[in-house]
Amino acid sequence: MSHQPSTMRAGGFRALPMIASGEVVRARVVAVDRDGLRQRDDWVVVEEPLEIRAGGVGQTPVSVAVTMRTPGRDFELAVGFLRAEGLIESRDRIAAVDAVDSGLSLLENRPCNVVQVVVTGTFDGSALKRNFMATSSCGLCGKSTLDQVEARCGPVAPGPVVTDSVIVGLPRALRAAQKAFDRTGGLHAAGLFDAEGRLLAIREDVGRHNAVDKLIGRALLDDLLPLEGHILLVSGRTSFEILQKAAVAGVPIVASVSAPSSLAVSTADRLGITLIGFLRGSSFNVYSHPGRIRED
Amino acid sequence: MSHQPSTMRAGGFRALPMIASGEVVRARVVAVDRDGLRQRDDWVVVEEPLEIRAGGVGQTPVSVAVTMRTPGRDFELAVGFLRAEGLIESRDRIAAVDAVDSGLSLLENRPCNVVQVVVTGTFDGSALKRNFMATSSCGLCGKSTLDQVEARCGPVAPGPVVTDSVIVGLPRALRAAQKAFDRTGGLHAAGLFDAEGRLLAIREDVGRHNAVDKLIGRALLDDLLPLEGHILLVSGRTSFEILQKAAVAGVPIVASVSAPSSLAVSTADRLGITLIGFLRGSSFNVYSHPGRIRED
Repeated sequence: MSHQPSTMRAGGFRALPMIASGEVVRARVVAVDRDGLRQRDDWVVVEEPLEIRAGGVGQTPVSVAVTMRTPGRDFELAVGFLRAEGLIESRDRIAAVDAVDSGLSLLENRPCNVVQVVVTGTFDGSALKRNFMATSSCGLCGKSTLDQVEARCGPVAPGPVVTDSVIVGLPRALRAAQKAFDRTGGLHAAGLFDAEGRLLAIREDVGRHNAVDKLIGRALLDDLLPLEGHILLVSGRTSFEILQKAAVAGVPIVASVSAPSSLAVSTADRLGITLIGFLRGSSFNVYSHPGRIRED
Repeated sequence: MSHQPSTMRAGGFRALPMIASGEVVRARVVAVDRDGLRQRDDWVVVEEPLEIRAGGVGQTPVSVAVTMRTPGRDFELAVGFLRAEGLIESRDRIAAVDAVDSGLSLLENRPCNVVQVVVTGTFDGSALKRNFMATSSCGLCGKSTLDQVEARCGPVAPGPVVTDSVIVGLPRALRAAQKAFDRTGGLHAAGLFDAEGRLLAIREDVGRHNAVDKLIGRALLDDLLPLEGHILLVSGRTSFEILQKAAVAGVPIVASVSAPSSLAVSTADRLGITLIGFLRGSSFNVYSHPGRIRED
């Protein structure tokens, strides 16, 4: 069973939001309140491990990661992860994406726990090991971590200047798209917007980083990287990991309804990303490169 | 520079909450609201990588993990992580905990980016590799992941039966302890309570799992594992990872103000843990083993 990425264009990036992730299951719960205890059913978001494997054409693929994720959009997650880790650079490196040990196609949005990416040319699996060895080497500090990210992607392009009213409108658009799908309260969302604040795509996952990997994977499969004219909005906090992924994808503006970490701010500052936090109601904070934001 | 764990008993587990983590830095931000743009200072939570190394006495320690964490309580984080991964079982396996490549003591709550745990007897570093190989092996699924956890810790003890009013009071106690320390809005908190709802310890971190590792590490250093009579409350969502750590520490009741994942529910169900979610106001849901909760 092998799918060429071209078959994955359905529900494409430029179209209306396609939200096929966010799988849920029914769970029996004991609900407790002032009136006492009673049993009822509730929805719970699905969390399952996904193994990501990669290899060259004709090579035996190697396991590069196991991530706990919400099933669905697994092909996007796998290629987005590989892009963020620097193991593939562009869509033309992808020969095929396969669901392994399962007769179920991810295109039909069915669970599958191993995804294998076949890469054109020689696949350098040691790149991942190098990344790991580098991040785990002696003398580790925020700066050396930033050095690595910068070496892998360089600063983002200048990109657009957007108005404060565009920024203020983003969370409402994301929540409106989430509302229909998140019945569990347990899903993080990541949304990709254009510079006019139009929601282009949303992905949801139990893991914040997975939701971003799925967006980036979709963009890579649609050959849209770098995302130079776009805004990324995440529902959770912004950490180093989120900024690293945004930088690799070339996103110039990253916004969050919640707080950034110090390393998220440093990374954004150094790589030229405008980092926005506490985006709530009609106010927000800009932590780096405020030049891309102007008053309406 | 080497500290015997006994020197870390100050601020112990049984005493009033000791909250030394949660380091923050000042950041310059552009604040945007209806009145326009203005510059001001804000607090941002610190996120920095920590490398955890371990080895036997006289052995060269090996790198077992790099985690992004909020500095402070790094010794607790290191030993808690090693315990959760099954690399050490109890306090008597710890010969020393050292800050490497830094003259700064963690006991003085200063940043340090490498912590090294010296283990009595032979340290089997391959256990971590086996864990990784096992979780990344073919045929991966929720069930096999649970098999591993169960093999490592077995079901938790029956533990206490607590009233619904004790459960309902937990979040207020955690928030009151957090308020004084989290000026950033960016910290996750994990609190350990006794069966009467008294807060014994709280740890904060940018990473939910790190806050739990710090609590478990503290308990291990104070030789209090398993935590059979205790309640763990986390500020974020409950995932497989959080339940795995609670199971290893023997905590019978895990509560969260937010949603659990499906795998958190399965893990709790199988390992005998009472899992509580959406603990808000005077109501909550019990997802597994409700027998430990009774009406007041």
